[in-house]
Amino acid sequence: MKTNTQQWSQTDQKIAQEALGKAYARETEALVAEINQKASQITQINDIWALNDYLNSKRYHIDGKYYSNDTISMFVLAQLVKEKWLSLDELSGLTPSTRAKVAALAKMS
Amino acid sequence: MKTNTQQWSQTDQKIAQEALGKAYARETEALVAEINQKASQITQINDIWALNDYLNSKRYHIDGKYYSNDTISMFVLAQLVKEKWLSLDELSGLTPSTRAKVAALAKMS
Repeated sequence: MKTNTQQWSQTDQKIAQEALGKAYARETEALVAEINQKASQITQINDIWALNDYLNSKRYHIDGKYYSNDTISMFVLAQLVKEKWLSLDELSGLTPSTRAKVAALAKMS
Repeated sequence: MKTNTQQWSQTDQKIAQEALGKAYARETEALVAEINQKASQITQINDIWALNDYLNSKRYHIDGKYYSNDTISMFVLAQLVKEKWLSLDELSGLTPSTRAKVAALAKMS
C-alpha cells in the first residue's frame, strides 16, 4: 500500500496510507462476514463453485486496489470513496488540491 | 463423464459411468460437508484466501477426474478406488480383464 511519492507531499502520503489501511480493514472485515453468511447456505457442489468464482473475483479486485503500483493511488482513493469504504472526511488532512481531485474522481468514476 | 468407447464393452462402459457417478456424488457431498466446516472457522481475510486456494485446487482435481477426455477413464477409476471414493466391489460387473487392470493401476498409483 504505497502512494505516489512523486506527486504527493509526505503528509498527503501518510494520510493516504492510513486511509487505505482503514478501507482495507473495513472491506476485508465485511468480506469475512459476507463469506461466513454465504458459506452457511452451501448445500451442494454448485454452491461451492459459485463461492469459488466469487472469491476469485473479490481477490482480484481487492489485490488490484490495495496492492497496485504507485501511480494509481489517487484513483484508488476515489474508488474507495465511491464504494463507501472511505469517507471524504477521512481525507480532510490531504492537501486541498489533492483532496479536491480525489473528490472529483469519485464523482466521475 | 464418458468412458473410452473404443476399448470397453457397452456393459463395461455403463458400469464405469455408474461408478463414476457414484464416486462424484460421494466426493462432492464430502466436499460440501468439509467446506461447511472450514467456512464456519473463518475469522479473517487470510482464512478466506486460504479457502479460495483450496477450492481452486479441489476444482482443478475434480474437473480433471470427472470431466476429462475419453482416454483416461481407466486411470480415473483406479484413482477413485485408491482415494476410496469407489470400492473394487462396485466394479464387479466389469469385464474381468478390465477390472483387473483397474485394480492393478489402483495399487501402483
